[in-house]
Amino acid sequence: MNAELIAVGTELLLGNIANTDAQMLSEGLSTIGINVYYHTVVGDNPQRLREALDIARKRANIIITTGGLGPTYDDLTKQTICETFGLPLEFHEDIWEDICAYFTKRMKREDIPEGNKQQAMLPVGCTVLDNPVGTAPGCAFEKDGIHVLMLPGPPFECRYLFENRAKAYLEKLTHEKIYSHELRIFGMGESHVEQALHEIMVRGTNPTLAPYAKTGEVMLRATAKAPTEGEAEALLRPLIDEVRQVLGDVIYGEDVDSLEEVVLALLKERNMTLSAAESCTGGLIAKRFTDLPGASAAFRGGVVSYTSEVKESALGVPHELIEEHGAVSEAVACAMAEGCRRVCGSDIAVSVTGVAGPERDERDHPVGTVFIGLATKHGTICRQIDLSRGRSRGHIRTLAAHHAFDIVRRSLLHTVL
Amino acid sequence: MNAELIAVGTELLLGNIANTDAQMLSEGLSTIGINVYYHTVVGDNPQRLREALDIARKRANIIITTGGLGPTYDDLTKQTICETFGLPLEFHEDIWEDICAYFTKRMKREDIPEGNKQQAMLPVGCTVLDNPVGTAPGCAFEKDGIHVLMLPGPPFECRYLFENRAKAYLEKLTHEKIYSHELRIFGMGESHVEQALHEIMVRGTNPTLAPYAKTGEVMLRATAKAPTEGEAEALLRPLIDEVRQVLGDVIYGEDVDSLEEVVLALLKERNMTLSAAESCTGGLIAKRFTDLPGASAAFRGGVVSYTSEVKESALGVPHELIEEHGAVSEAVACAMAEGCRRVCGSDIAVSVTGVAGPERDERDHPVGTVFIGLATKHGTICRQIDLSRGRSRGHIRTLAAHHAFDIVRRSLLHTVL
Repeated sequence: MNAELIAVGTELLLGNIANTDAQMLSEGLSTIGINVYYHTVVGDNPQRLREALDIARKRANIIITTGGLGPTYDDLTKQTICETFGLPLEFHEDIWEDICAYFTKRMKREDIPEGNKQQAMLPVGCTVLDNPVGTAPGCAFEKDGIHVLMLPGPPFECRYLFENRAKAYLEKLTHEKIYSHELRIFGMGESHVEQALHEIMVRGTNPTLAPYAKTGEVMLRATAKAPTEGEAEALLRPLIDEVRQVLGDVIYGEDVDSLEEVVLALLKERNMTLSAAESCTGGLIAKRFTDLPGASAAFRGGVVSYTSEVKESALGVPHELIEEHGAVSEAVACAMAEGCRRVCGSDIAVSVTGVAGPERDERDHPVGTVFIGLATKHGTICRQIDLSRGRSRGHIRTLAAHHAFDIVRRSLLHTVL
Repeated sequence: MNAELIAVGTELLLGNIANTDAQMLSEGLSTIGINVYYHTVVGDNPQRLREALDIARKRANIIITTGGLGPTYDDLTKQTICETFGLPLEFHEDIWEDICAYFTKRMKREDIPEGNKQQAMLPVGCTVLDNPVGTAPGCAFEKDGIHVLMLPGPPFECRYLFENRAKAYLEKLTHEKIYSHELRIFGMGESHVEQALHEIMVRGTNPTLAPYAKTGEVMLRATAKAPTEGEAEALLRPLIDEVRQVLGDVIYGEDVDSLEEVVLALLKERNMTLSAAESCTGGLIAKRFTDLPGASAAFRGGVVSYTSEVKESALGVPHELIEEHGAVSEAVACAMAEGCRRVCGSDIAVSVTGVAGPERDERDHPVGTVFIGLATKHGTICRQIDLSRGRSRGHIRTLAAHHAFDIVRRSLLHTVL
């Protein structure tokens, strides 16, 4: 089976938004063994959409559209697809009731616009992909050996309908079942990972192992084809164990999204708390940690000490220490971590002080010089890291935060301090 | 002139990355009056790229490709395009010298991989779009009335080459010159903006006015076609003045990127400083403000008081106040702002306390209840805002930070406090 994704929306062609639906769908389709050979984006223009559909039906047997299912006059995806495939639309009373309920219950509105009625019109005989998180239902049908799925454009609704509706429809089409696990790696570059795992990576076609570079880290995906999850696990587990043996503790997690997610889980497991004293990261560590639902179970708080005065007043870093060593120094990183641990009353405190740029600091440290401090009941340590290869201020800050989370992870695993 | 964008890269079809190059280019092309009718994405597959090129040359007179210019065997964009358009490649000695210099000076490497030599091969007679920020040069040529531009895939390089090389090439092709200004609006929804400006928006075709919804805010773009910038300004200025008169101070800036950028400029202008005490936003305000280069001129720091204890220890919020009113309350928001202003020694302090979810707080406030405090030398105020329509924890936090920056902006303009 091979799929083409067609996104419909002039806002994509004007560059107002990126086509993140295509990314999400492509990733999802790859996990169920469907190849994606093309993405196409067209505007809210029935003529050009028709042409794109004519091209797609010649080169794909699954066409997935996103967007153009809204209630306004320029939402023409359904009509155009039905014309192209020679299917009439029909009104679905139950879908209309769902839409009305969405307005009255979720949006707390009594005045349901007449235009929304067209959202209850769907191709005759289609599988309805009902949408509890918005007003536009999706749908799927098969005609002349081609499966067409229509999903709404707003990313949250598109993801919901793919995960909870479309995926099951598509899994029935692919007789192959594909299972995968992802290993996340911090502290080793992509080329080194490839070099270390070369033998394993070229060994066979089932299971397979492939690396992907992410910002400042590497993701390894192990994939197996098998009739059942148990058989897939039997293929994947020895492979993953072998990879773990080769790479060791640069692997920070399996099937997780981020370093901070792993840190939060470790803290909860140990019933411990964290705080952060941030200079050059300016709140990024706290922000990322509190992006996680449930962070409050382990995060006490932090201080963004962007000036020396705040390092003194809020963290109790001695004035003389800053005078003597400068704000970007090992001594100050340690004092920041210790002060933060005391003020926030946390088990662990991490600190970052450095030069994110664009300019060198007043002591002429080059951009990318960063010190990370860690204070626990066992003592305080500091690591100097060189991020001078960081591509930008934002990139340096992101990498510094990665390092801060990794040192906390390592302290929780007792590989530091 | 109408353009088609073709992105080449299997990583896009696997969903490892989103096609942000297409967004950046689409936005850039719209500002120079080039219509984009299609985006296409193909993998690193010469056969499918050839087919995509054959389709594109029938429906566009400008084709811009991104990606596939790297040094490895699967980077086949140039070869495939040259075959399709019947142009041979030739070796450019000067480009090869640039690449060697990039390796030795920027990357500090002496071993220049042989594969990089193919990056110095370019179509005969092309305009070279040299690349000082990477190893892959771009190029542009015209054949049979079709202009083809090849740009590298990495977003930073792609943007650099578009802004600094390709744009000038394309501007020569479009005889029309297009100028625009963007107004940013916070505190009024897209439909209300449209309603208020309806008459102006339908008035004519030059200049034009169009609204775009962003997360929690609205952007209005005023666009004029004119032979010179002066003549364009003469069309745009009265329009913008009229819009300003209708909308008033919900317009927070012109040709700016964010509320925080405007706040930083106002603070610098007045030689004043800011600090932030954050509970539910968890560092997001500090992070966003310090994302701005030069933030250190006006940002003193902040406290992420994620627990009541830290509100007490780091901000000096009285224990009894929290006991009596709860952490999510007007009284605590005010005390947080006052404490933060004192501890950080800033002219202005803003505070946020609220419920970002997913759960209600211990006093059963619904998700989306947020209090924003503001302390200046004139006193302290608090605004309660209702973000219960926020779609997610992240969305609520983003909107709360928007509100915090807006209240600081208003205090700097003396429309509050």
